[in-house]
Amino acid sequence: MKKIEHIGIAVRDLQKAEKIFSTIFGKNAYKTEEVISESVKTTFFKVGESKIELVAATNTQSPIAKYLDKNREGMHHIAFAVDDIEKEMTRLKKEGIRLLNETPKTGADNQLICFLHPKDTSGVLIELCQGKA
Amino acid sequence: MKKIEHIGIAVRDLQKAEKIFSTIFGKNAYKTEEVISESVKTTFFKVGESKIELVAATNTQSPIAKYLDKNREGMHHIAFAVDDIEKEMTRLKKEGIRLLNETPKTGADNQLICFLHPKDTSGVLIELCQGKA
Repeated sequence: MKKIEHIGIAVRDLQKAEKIFSTIFGKNAYKTEEVISESVKTTFFKVGESKIELVAATNTQSPIAKYLDKNREGMHHIAFAVDDIEKEMTRLKKEGIRLLNETPKTGADNQLICFLHPKDTSGVLIELCQGKA
Repeated sequence: MKKIEHIGIAVRDLQKAEKIFSTIFGKNAYKTEEVISESVKTTFFKVGESKIELVAATNTQSPIAKYLDKNREGMHHIAFAVDDIEKEMTRLKKEGIRLLNETPKTGADNQLICFLHPKDTSGVLIELCQGKA
């Protein structure tokens, strides 16, 4: 794991949350992007070498809509940057950590991604991210 | 906000969580520290310019014990490094974001800290951190 790539924050109202985090950081988001495959809309802020990703559902079938049915708004996942996602997936699987997807998926902001099962990681939803070349 | 200083993860069993995160990062924690004023024991890993802080309660009156009475294990707070914590506290207060402590407190790993009210920050418990000189 090279660095924290981003922290994902699940929010109900993306515009409202964007305004709050613009205030906290004293600067604007650098990008808003819809990820149709995940039914989410995301807004990104840069902070140091990492990003804060605000994530809102675009329909009721979105994993974020389902998450917010059961949980309050707040931190949803933490993503670590890796050089070789397939190698890390193989290594962690051998260590007994379950993967939520067996092959890398395409995520927001031009990344190959894989989620680890939070039951194997102290309740934390961890995402591995490899920037696409 | 200069960078993510650390992500705080609330855990029930510090040793078990330390083992899991050693596996994920492929390296050992660099420090375990008890913060008596907060009734917590913390274990730190470095990842890039940031840290992962595992936090466990040392007694039933600990804020972490109270948190885990109502919530599952997982991400508890996000801390941002600032140059001048008092200046940032004044700025954010003027913007209408409530502070959980009106003067900086001493936190783990030699930091002056202040928490922001999660009701004003999209449900995220945010900590400001200024390294002590």
